[in-house]
Amino acid sequence: MLRIAVLNGPNLNMLGIREPGVYGNDSLAAIEELVKKRGDELGVSVSFFQTNHEGEMIDRIHSAYGNEEGIIINPGAWTHYSYAIRDALSAVALPIVEVHLSNIHKREAFRHLSVVAPVAVGQLAGFGSFGYVMALEALTRLLQSESNKG
Amino acid sequence: MLRIAVLNGPNLNMLGIREPGVYGNDSLAAIEELVKKRGDELGVSVSFFQTNHEGEMIDRIHSAYGNEEGIIINPGAWTHYSYAIRDALSAVALPIVEVHLSNIHKREAFRHLSVVAPVAVGQLAGFGSFGYVMALEALTRLLQSESNKG
Amino acid sequence: MLRIAVLNGPNLNMLGIREPGVYGNDSLAAIEELVKKRGDELGVSVSFFQTNHEGEMIDRIHSAYGNEEGIIINPGAWTHYSYAIRDALSAVALPIVEVHLSNIHKREAFRHLSVVAPVAVGQLAGFGSFGYVMALEALTRLLQSESNKG
Amino acid sequence: MLRIAVLNGPNLNMLGIREPGVYGNDSLAAIEELVKKRGDELGVSVSFFQTNHEGEMIDRIHSAYGNEEGIIINPGAWTHYSYAIRDALSAVALPIVEVHLSNIHKREAFRHLSVVAPVAVGQLAGFGSFGYVMALEALTRLLQSESNKG
Amino acid sequence: MLRIAVLNGPNLNMLGIREPGVYGNDSLAAIEELVKKRGDELGVSVSFFQTNHEGEMIDRIHSAYGNEEGIIINPGAWTHYSYAIRDALSAVALPIVEVHLSNIHKREAFRHLSVVAPVAVGQLAGFGSFGYVMALEALTRLLQSESNKG
Amino acid sequence: MLRIAVLNGPNLNMLGIREPGVYGNDSLAAIEELVKKRGDELGVSVSFFQTNHEGEMIDRIHSAYGNEEGIIINPGAWTHYSYAIRDALSAVALPIVEVHLSNIHKREAFRHLSVVAPVAVGQLAGFGSFGYVMALEALTRLLQSESNKG
Amino acid sequence: MLRIAVLNGPNLNMLGIREPGVYGNDSLAAIEELVKKRGDELGVSVSFFQTNHEGEMIDRIHSAYGNEEGIIINPGAWTHYSYAIRDALSAVALPIVEVHLSNIHKREAFRHLSVVAPVAVGQLAGFGSFGYVMALEALTRLLQSESNKG
Amino acid sequence: MLRIAVLNGPNLNMLGIREPGVYGNDSLAAIEELVKKRGDELGVSVSFFQTNHEGEMIDRIHSAYGNEEGIIINPGAWTHYSYAIRDALSAVALPIVEVHLSNIHKREAFRHLSVVAPVAVGQLAGFGSFGYVMALEALTRLLQSESNKG
Amino acid sequence: MLRIAVLNGPNLNMLGIREPGVYGNDSLAAIEELVKKRGDELGVSVSFFQTNHEGEMIDRIHSAYGNEEGIIINPGAWTHYSYAIRDALSAVALPIVEVHLSNIHKREAFRHLSVVAPVAVGQLAGFGSFGYVMALEALTRLLQSESNKG
Amino acid sequence: MLRIAVLNGPNLNMLGIREPGVYGNDSLAAIEELVKKRGDELGVSVSFFQTNHEGEMIDRIHSAYGNEEGIIINPGAWTHYSYAIRDALSAVALPIVEVHLSNIHKREAFRHLSVVAPVAVGQLAGFGSFGYVMALEALTRLLQSESNKG
Amino acid sequence: MLRIAVLNGPNLNMLGIREPGVYGNDSLAAIEELVKKRGDELGVSVSFFQTNHEGEMIDRIHSAYGNEEGIIINPGAWTHYSYAIRDALSAVALPIVEVHLSNIHKREAFRHLSVVAPVAVGQLAGFGSFGYVMALEALTRLLQSESNKG
Amino acid sequence: MLRIAVLNGPNLNMLGIREPGVYGNDSLAAIEELVKKRGDELGVSVSFFQTNHEGEMIDRIHSAYGNEEGIIINPGAWTHYSYAIRDALSAVALPIVEVHLSNIHKREAFRHLSVVAPVAVGQLAGFGSFGYVMALEALTRLLQSESNKG
Repeated sequence: MLRIAVLNGPNLNMLGIREPGVYGNDSLAAIEELVKKRGDELGVSVSFFQTNHEGEMIDRIHSAYGNEEGIIINPGAWTHYSYAIRDALSAVALPIVEVHLSNIHKREAFRHLSVVAPVAVGQLAGFGSFGYVMALEALTRLLQSESNKG
Repeated sequence: MLRIAVLNGPNLNMLGIREPGVYGNDSLAAIEELVKKRGDELGVSVSFFQTNHEGEMIDRIHSAYGNEEGIIINPGAWTHYSYAIRDALSAVALPIVEVHLSNIHKREAFRHLSVVAPVAVGQLAGFGSFGYVMALEALTRLLQSESNKG
Repeated sequence: MLRIAVLNGPNLNMLGIREPGVYGNDSLAAIEELVKKRGDELGVSVSFFQTNHEGEMIDRIHSAYGNEEGIIINPGAWTHYSYAIRDALSAVALPIVEVHLSNIHKREAFRHLSVVAPVAVGQLAGFGSFGYVMALEALTRLLQSESNKG
Repeated sequence: MLRIAVLNGPNLNMLGIREPGVYGNDSLAAIEELVKKRGDELGVSVSFFQTNHEGEMIDRIHSAYGNEEGIIINPGAWTHYSYAIRDALSAVALPIVEVHLSNIHKREAFRHLSVVAPVAVGQLAGFGSFGYVMALEALTRLLQSESNKG
Repeated sequence: MLRIAVLNGPNLNMLGIREPGVYGNDSLAAIEELVKKRGDELGVSVSFFQTNHEGEMIDRIHSAYGNEEGIIINPGAWTHYSYAIRDALSAVALPIVEVHLSNIHKREAFRHLSVVAPVAVGQLAGFGSFGYVMALEALTRLLQSESNKG
Repeated sequence: MLRIAVLNGPNLNMLGIREPGVYGNDSLAAIEELVKKRGDELGVSVSFFQTNHEGEMIDRIHSAYGNEEGIIINPGAWTHYSYAIRDALSAVALPIVEVHLSNIHKREAFRHLSVVAPVAVGQLAGFGSFGYVMALEALTRLLQSESNKG
Repeated sequence: MLRIAVLNGPNLNMLGIREPGVYGNDSLAAIEELVKKRGDELGVSVSFFQTNHEGEMIDRIHSAYGNEEGIIINPGAWTHYSYAIRDALSAVALPIVEVHLSNIHKREAFRHLSVVAPVAVGQLAGFGSFGYVMALEALTRLLQSESNKG
Repeated sequence: MLRIAVLNGPNLNMLGIREPGVYGNDSLAAIEELVKKRGDELGVSVSFFQTNHEGEMIDRIHSAYGNEEGIIINPGAWTHYSYAIRDALSAVALPIVEVHLSNIHKREAFRHLSVVAPVAVGQLAGFGSFGYVMALEALTRLLQSESNKG
Repeated sequence: MLRIAVLNGPNLNMLGIREPGVYGNDSLAAIEELVKKRGDELGVSVSFFQTNHEGEMIDRIHSAYGNEEGIIINPGAWTHYSYAIRDALSAVALPIVEVHLSNIHKREAFRHLSVVAPVAVGQLAGFGSFGYVMALEALTRLLQSESNKG
Repeated sequence: MLRIAVLNGPNLNMLGIREPGVYGNDSLAAIEELVKKRGDELGVSVSFFQTNHEGEMIDRIHSAYGNEEGIIINPGAWTHYSYAIRDALSAVALPIVEVHLSNIHKREAFRHLSVVAPVAVGQLAGFGSFGYVMALEALTRLLQSESNKG
Repeated sequence: MLRIAVLNGPNLNMLGIREPGVYGNDSLAAIEELVKKRGDELGVSVSFFQTNHEGEMIDRIHSAYGNEEGIIINPGAWTHYSYAIRDALSAVALPIVEVHLSNIHKREAFRHLSVVAPVAVGQLAGFGSFGYVMALEALTRLLQSESNKG
Repeated sequence: MLRIAVLNGPNLNMLGIREPGVYGNDSLAAIEELVKKRGDELGVSVSFFQTNHEGEMIDRIHSAYGNEEGIIINPGAWTHYSYAIRDALSAVALPIVEVHLSNIHKREAFRHLSVVAPVAVGQLAGFGSFGYVMALEALTRLLQSESNKG
């Protein structure tokens, strides 16, 4: 059974409270429930993690090494400066999908650059909560097709 | 019944032939079949268009005005300089989803900037052919939820 | 009798529909009627052309060579990147007046640069439909004064 | 009766003497006479002011507040650095038309940027003395249409 | 009774030891005592927090939501790159005052930019320990005037 | 008795009239009264000066040499380009406090840079009229502590 | 027999008319005749194409796939912004030689950058009409040496 | 006896696993053993610390104050953005040697800049595990020569 | 008899008082006396002018038109931003020598650029008071050699 | 008889040894023989020079003055920074053809800029050894056509 | 026996005389003696070379080809602009260690960039004379480990 | 007796021949004679040196150490990139005067920056041959006043 980690970075615990005009009304728990349900349908085991601590995120990414087959990550504001998280993702050498609730490419200029993107398979931005479901489907599909080749 | 236009820009007619290591092995016809099938499942009418001519793309975008409810577009290399296409998308005032086969954010620097993104709902990149299906699902969902609010 | 070409670039066929808050409520036909009327008063023959195709615009500019004495052009979004149109205008070596409906110098940063300006006599921006009339008067005046010197 | 201020910045008192190849042969007095005559035709009261002192220009702009309905300004070289004049124009909250004798967009790079443009209705450049007449017509038309709406 | 959080970022626990020529001789405890005393005079409840951990700071900012009416923050070196802290401050939607002991605008170029400033009411820099008292007075005044309007 | 000059640059005479959403409703006279009152309480002699003329401001700064012990200055838009005022402040070698009504660090990019800051003790921005009182308190305190050391 | 396409972009149909001081006095027909004659001598079949339409150029480049062994292209002004043409050249995976009549490296700064160069074997600029003959000789030689290795 | 801290930043716990082509095959434990052995030979007490948490690194650096005579640090990806770690190193005012396993100056552009370098005695990069031994020798030598002068 | 204007910009009236380490101990009066004496020796009439007002400087430059044969100017801080003074110097079309007391090319980066230099014959910087004498000799020599050619 | 100098800059003596994947397998001697042979066919006297010393190259360029009619130069890495060689080429005022073995426009960014190009007739890059023959033919043709006009 | 070249660039012959505060008190002869002694201990043959002539340095680097197994180089100021030396190092395809006496990463901005680094195994900076010994040890170790693999 | 070296860099041996419109008609020998004559009048021993070899210039600068009291240098094109010459001038720690025949600040942008200026007392540009005499006078004066203080 495929195992996928869904990781959320800083301030995503504030979803539903934080700027709903930008990030939507769903809480993170609601999103995780949505994703879990879709994972169940796809026959994929999904584990969730959120932290506001860069170090905890790096530790969690490392723990995926040997324990999970792929990572979905919304690095929040770290997207734009945390080369440490980029290197952590690169170190575990798993397929990565990068998700953003809002369309970062139409917001402030500093949000247009993702330092994480160069180590990710793909990026999606602007689809709100549903973006996580899309990411799960895409990553599952990718892992299954790789697995079929093996 | 929702009507969605799926528009492809320059060189996408060469898919399957053109740099398969970057863009995959599927032909554009195969992708369109895939998307059409998913559209049928979702009860959405999907029409397809590909052109290497900026002017034809602009004309086609204009024709969506009053005839379709949303647009999925892969602007190909125009993504990075065609402000004319951006203005066309802005003029018809429909929800736009921007798709890229490859993860443009990890390729040459000039491909990191999308001049189209500021007028799009969301962007997804790096998911190959399947990205169009993801876009269709996301746009359908968005249009249905807007429609439900109305 | 002086002959002047009034050329409009991409998306200007959408005037009246497209973002009226930015571009005003007049259709392009209405603007052309306005300009024609003023041309009649000034004893100037005015011909109109609009296209969303860069190549057609270039062809049309070339056709002015030997057939018209001056050009009024609103290059739309091409203003900011089409060096091909700039070179076309330069090739025919006629007096050029550059018009913009909105004041491009107070909009997004990419609209502040005109790659066409270095081959134009003058530029005016922000005067809406009336800007074309102003351009016609200025160009007529210039051509007549040149003609008087000849 | 509409009242419009026509303000000229540094070195414009040298017109006719200063680089006639760039700025033309007309003296500032000649231009003002031209504009006044056109104002009379339009039924608009036009007052003129020229100064080489930034502070005097700011004071003059302030004095327009409550006394005039619009401003035509050629800020000369201040165009490119005087944020103080920009703020003065912004403070009086009147419609502003920015005029330049030469086409600043085809001269040295530093002349391409106008720090004043973001607070102006429109800008015109390259039409020599006649540019002031064009500005007067455009501003009058704008003020009359606003007045008609009121 | 108004409740205000006074938050200090990395290395501010070293005050009095760290580069006294730049940051002064007072310890952080001494500054907090000074601020507390002034809070007592103003009838404001002030709570203090210092951390070298970005994640702890974000958690602490979140905890202000619903518990405090305003935040005074000296983000230390995070000022210049922690978009995560900026987003945390933005998420709680409280009035923020940004304080710096030294005048960051006259030090190394990288210290001139505050990524936090765009979500703060105001910024003060260069007034040493007393700057915190100034911030407290200003924030109290602001909260009281808002409260009076309510 | 300490003597402090409070200097205001261009357009600050328009306070109360000019963009109240940005700069507040107080007139400059009201602010000066507020500051004077606080000066009386602190036993400090405060003199006021406002000008829209860069040269007059420079002359006034020079006159502080030998006659006053410190300067509070809001250089308005000169903040961003007047190296002449910076050099004047540097020439008199007095402690300088830089005040801005609005938080310049969250407005247009050109307002983020202060060319005056490198010669000032400290800067405060975003506290409206009250910012002048804060500046007076901070400067008084600084001058008294220096005086006590002497 | 080797087949080589010689493609010319926008405004090259105006050769002989357009700025002869920059581009020389030969018409495009004269250049094509010159190249054809040299092709005959070398035993190479040369076909010619000129267009002002980016889309037509892309279509023509695609048609070389499977039909020709190499391409000589003067992309005119597209050289500096048409990533779509670059991608078309890249898609057909043939050896490309880039030719410019004038020495683009000594003209305006925007002409120094070729977005096409990274997909070309070589570039030559500044040799006027004769440059096409040089390109033909170089490309023929390259294709023959590759063929000899096969 | 000299005491030296050897500090390693994010992802260095993954050595031997992480991209061995870039970082080598040695685990961090193996490196520490190597360094310890060399420390024993030199008569220097070496203590080791690794963390993925910026805050823990700052705390550890602070704890060196008064307890150790020098610091060897490989800040990993923090090298390129953590001004907080730079300020921590600056605060303790000890001699710092900066080590990198790979030659950061020949990798991606963002790795060329070290924000830590301005507070370090020296930097060495590209010598793999042995670089730590080199750093130990250099720092020991420096501390002994300083001690001899004292 | 040759007539030469020696013009000094903002803060140069503070010479001898202002930062003597940078600008020297001589007062402006002392410098003028020095220059006058040398002018007498050379048989040149020298007139002096200093102002802190940009507008007065522009007026004074204009008045040189027809009354003097050359200008020596130290524009002080205006050197770096006053395009108005540059245009004034350009308008009078006289030979200009630009003088700076300190070597501006080794001070802060903003002082390395002179916006005035492109309209000056020559520039000299770093020679203190004596620089004015050098400028006088050079300009006299130039004017005499031009006069001899006439 | 036409005399042409073929000059090669630093490291070109290492051809055949140095990075053959980039620069080809021919030695410099082999290239010179090739060029000489072609010169003989064209009736042109060709002299060769290679040096790794910038000063020797400058001296050699100077010696062409009055002794040769044109120069073919491959400045190697000097292309990108030696303004001294550019000035030497400019000083002798002969037609210059710039040759590069590899296509510098597709290599590292620093190789895209040629400081020599602005003083050359034309540039060719990417044609390996044969590029020198092409240069010889082009320069001969140019010199003969100039000579025919004389 | 391993043979290693130790090469020193411009001004390093002035060591001991030149800015001892920056570069230390040792003469170059003293450094060479130190390195030779360590080479003897390591059983490595070390040859030394210093020159102020870029061409001589290039020639010397070339001569290492086939005669030495590795190069230690302190390129002095050439570090920052001599692409010719970079290409020479690249041409001989030997392991290179780059040494700097001072920590170039904390000095003027232009010294932060090494154009040589991309062709070097490693770089060390800031360790004074001892840095050469460190480089020798590192390079010897590297060559021996490579040799053991062969 | 004061001893001053007058050093000239690349291409200055071509004076009189090279672009006389820019550099004047005097040969270098004529300039040296002029300077020598003035040196005799001032009682200063002047020695001359010109080279096109950077290394020879560095050697010559070094030889001034202990043998001359000051240096006048026109570094020609090296001005803009030779950090090696800058370091040589810095190493000998003598007063340096930088001379340029033309006004480099009004020529191509790359000529506006002098990498040598930060180690020079002063710079003068645009005074042709006479600039060397001015430099001699200024340097003599400076050395005499220093000597008088000693």
